[in-house]
Amino acid sequence: MRVITFITDFGSREPFAGVMKGVIYSINPNVKIVDITHEIRPHNLQEACFVLLTSYHYFPQNTIHTIIVDPGVGGERKAVACKSEKFYFVAPDNGVLTPVKKKIVEAVVLENSKYFLKPVSYTFHGRDIFSPVAAHISLGRKLEEFGTPISPQELVEIPFPQAIFGKREVKGEVLYVDRFGNLITNIPAEEFFEWKGSSEIKALLRDKEINRIVKSYKEGGVESFLIPGSSGFLEVSIYGKRACQHFKARVGDGIIIKKL
Amino acid sequence: MRVITFITDFGSREPFAGVMKGVIYSINPNVKIVDITHEIRPHNLQEACFVLLTSYHYFPQNTIHTIIVDPGVGGERKAVACKSEKFYFVAPDNGVLTPVKKKIVEAVVLENSKYFLKPVSYTFHGRDIFSPVAAHISLGRKLEEFGTPISPQELVEIPFPQAIFGKREVKGEVLYVDRFGNLITNIPAEEFFEWKGSSEIKALLRDKEINRIVKSYKEGGVESFLIPGSSGFLEVSIYGKRACQHFKARVGDGIIIKKL
Amino acid sequence: MRVITFITDFGSREPFAGVMKGVIYSINPNVKIVDITHEIRPHNLQEACFVLLTSYHYFPQNTIHTIIVDPGVGGERKAVACKSEKFYFVAPDNGVLTPVKKKIVEAVVLENSKYFLKPVSYTFHGRDIFSPVAAHISLGRKLEEFGTPISPQELVEIPFPQAIFGKREVKGEVLYVDRFGNLITNIPAEEFFEWKGSSEIKALLRDKEINRIVKSYKEGGVESFLIPGSSGFLEVSIYGKRACQHFKARVGDGIIIKKL
Repeated sequence: MRVITFITDFGSREPFAGVMKGVIYSINPNVKIVDITHEIRPHNLQEACFVLLTSYHYFPQNTIHTIIVDPGVGGERKAVACKSEKFYFVAPDNGVLTPVKKKIVEAVVLENSKYFLKPVSYTFHGRDIFSPVAAHISLGRKLEEFGTPISPQELVEIPFPQAIFGKREVKGEVLYVDRFGNLITNIPAEEFFEWKGSSEIKALLRDKEINRIVKSYKEGGVESFLIPGSSGFLEVSIYGKRACQHFKARVGDGIIIKKL
Repeated sequence: MRVITFITDFGSREPFAGVMKGVIYSINPNVKIVDITHEIRPHNLQEACFVLLTSYHYFPQNTIHTIIVDPGVGGERKAVACKSEKFYFVAPDNGVLTPVKKKIVEAVVLENSKYFLKPVSYTFHGRDIFSPVAAHISLGRKLEEFGTPISPQELVEIPFPQAIFGKREVKGEVLYVDRFGNLITNIPAEEFFEWKGSSEIKALLRDKEINRIVKSYKEGGVESFLIPGSSGFLEVSIYGKRACQHFKARVGDGIIIKKL
Repeated sequence: MRVITFITDFGSREPFAGVMKGVIYSINPNVKIVDITHEIRPHNLQEACFVLLTSYHYFPQNTIHTIIVDPGVGGERKAVACKSEKFYFVAPDNGVLTPVKKKIVEAVVLENSKYFLKPVSYTFHGRDIFSPVAAHISLGRKLEEFGTPISPQELVEIPFPQAIFGKREVKGEVLYVDRFGNLITNIPAEEFFEWKGSSEIKALLRDKEINRIVKSYKEGGVESFLIPGSSGFLEVSIYGKRACQHFKARVGDGIIIKKL
C-alpha cells in the first residue's frame, strides 16, 4: 500500500484537489492519498518549504510527496521527480524542494508524455503531469522512465532563511504563524538549547521582550514565552492568546535572542 | 475498488461530510471517497453545475458522483440516481445534474426505503438517502432496485448559461471565480479558437478592455489577458494579481469578445 | 477494514492533520481515516462535545474516534483510551468525552511509551501519542496494553448544558451555529414533541418570538420557525436566510419555549 501526499496552494474550496485524486485513482486505485495542505498562500514557495520540511518525514517509506506551488506553470520551469533514501518528491523545479535538496539521490526531468494526461494544459500541471506521474511512481515505475536524469545539485534552490548563531546572540525570523497564533521561528530548538547552555536569555521581537522558556503551553501562562515547538523550531507563544496579535508580528519579522 | 465523490454546500468546517462517510463505510468499507468540494456557496445550484461539469470525467469508470445542493430537502422535489455510459450520479432532482443530463441513459426515483438510513430526517437526506444509496450502488446493486425508472428527459433542468457565438462577436459570462482571482467564463476555449481563426480580437468586461490571448499565466504578465483555462473554458486573468479585483467582476457578469 | 476518525481544533489549513495521517499509515497502512472536522474553534471543548455527540454513532462498529481539543497538552491532564460497546475513543481526559462518558465500559490512561512516537513533544500529542495509539488499536491491540485501567466514572466531565423541561416551559440554549446560519439548540426533538403533545407553543430567543414548528426548511418559508434538526435537536431556522443574523444569536444564548 503506497501513499501519495499533496502540498499545494490550490485551496480546499476548489475542485482542483478532488480532480487530481480522480486522475490518480484512475491509474492506481489502491493508493492512499493524504492532503497535507491545499492552503499554502497563493504562490508562496517559502511557506510550502516550511510545511514540507516539518511534515514529509512522518510518512511511511516510499511515500510520494507531491508539492505544487507553481507560479511558472506552462512556462519554462522544469517539472521533476526526485528520490531520497526514503521518499519520492514530485514538483515543479522552482525551489520548492529546497529543504530536502541535500537528501535527494536521484532526479529526473519529467518529459515522457506517455505518463501525462492529454492534452496537457498550460495552466494545471497538477492534474496533467504531477498527479499521473505520482500515480505511476506508486505503481513501482523507475524514475528513469519519466525523463532525463539530472544531478540533484542542479535543482533550483531558493533562499530559505537560516538562523545565525553568534557567540552572544542568535538571529532568526518568523517562518510561519499557525491557527492558534503561535509564531514559529527558524531557530532549531535542539541547536538553541546547546548554544544556550545554562545561560539566562532575553529575546526581542517587534520591540517587545520575551524572558521565559517553557516546555508546555499551559505552563507558559498568559505572559509571552519561548517554547520548543512540535516542528523542531522555537516558537513564541502566549497561553490562550494569539501571540501574533500581541506582538503584531508576521512571517519574515526578525527575532533576536541574547545571552544575559 | 469503487470511488464515491461528493460535491456539496455542507462546508468543510461542519461534521456533515464526515458523518456521510461514516454511513458509507458502514455499508461498504472498501470504497474510496473523494471530496471534490463541500464549499459550494449555500444553495447555489449553478456553481455546483460548474464544478460537476469540470470534474466528473476525470474519475475512474463507474465512479458514483454524489451532488448535494438541496434547498428543497424534505419537500416535494424528487431524489434520483442516474447512470451515464461511464458514471453514476446521485442527487436531488432540482437541476443540479443539468450539465450531464444529455449523457444520462438510465434514471430512477429513489423510493425504496430499504436502502435508506432510518428514521429518514426531513433536513439531511445527504446522510439518510444519498449516501446510503451511493454506497449500495458501489456494492453493485442495479439502479432499478432503488425505485421507479423515469425518462432521463424528465430530469429537472436549470438554465445553465451558454455562450452565444455570433458572426462578429461572442457573448459569454463569468461562471466561477477561483482562489487565485481568475475569472472563468462559459466560453468553450476550443470552439472559441475555431470561431476566431486568425482574426485579432478585443474583449470587454465591466467596461475594461482585454486585448491579448496567451497560453500560460506567466507569459501573460501583469496586464490582463484571456487564457484557455484547465476547465476547457476561456479565463480572464492577470499574472500575480487577482483579476476579479482588477475588473471588480463577479459570477454572472457579461463578457463580449469582438473580432477586429 | 477499520476506521479512525478525527475531531480536532487543528485547522484544515495547517499540516497537523496530514502529519497525523502519516503517523497512522506508518503503523497501519490498511486503516481508513475520516476527518469529521478539524475546525472546532480553538480550545472549545463544548463545541467538540456537540460534534462528537451528533456524529460518532454513524460509523462502523469498532471505529476509533480520536478527539483532540487539548489546551492542557504537555501539562498534567491525562491522556486516555476508552471503549464503549461499539466504539473506541482516544482523547485527552479533559471533559471532551463527556457526551459519551455513560457508555464507556473500559478506560485506560495512556502510559506505555512503547506505543508513542519518540521523542514525545510537549505540544503535539495528537501526533506523538493519540495518533499512534489509535493506529495500534486499529491493529487489534487490547486497551490494557496501553496503560493503567481507570474506572470510567473517574473520567473528567464538563458541564454540557441540558435542556430543562418544566410543566409549562422548556429552557434550552444554542449549542451550535451551522454554516447555513441555523441555530441548533440543546432541546432533544423527540422529548420535546412528547412534552408538547397537542399544545400550541411560543418560543422566545433574544427577545424575538417564534410561533411555528415545521418539518422541512422549505415548508418553513421566510418567517422564522422551529424544526427538528438532523442532529436530533430542535433548530431555529429561516428558509434561505441566516437565522443567526436575524436573531443576532450565538452559541450560549438561551431559548424558552412556552405552552400557550
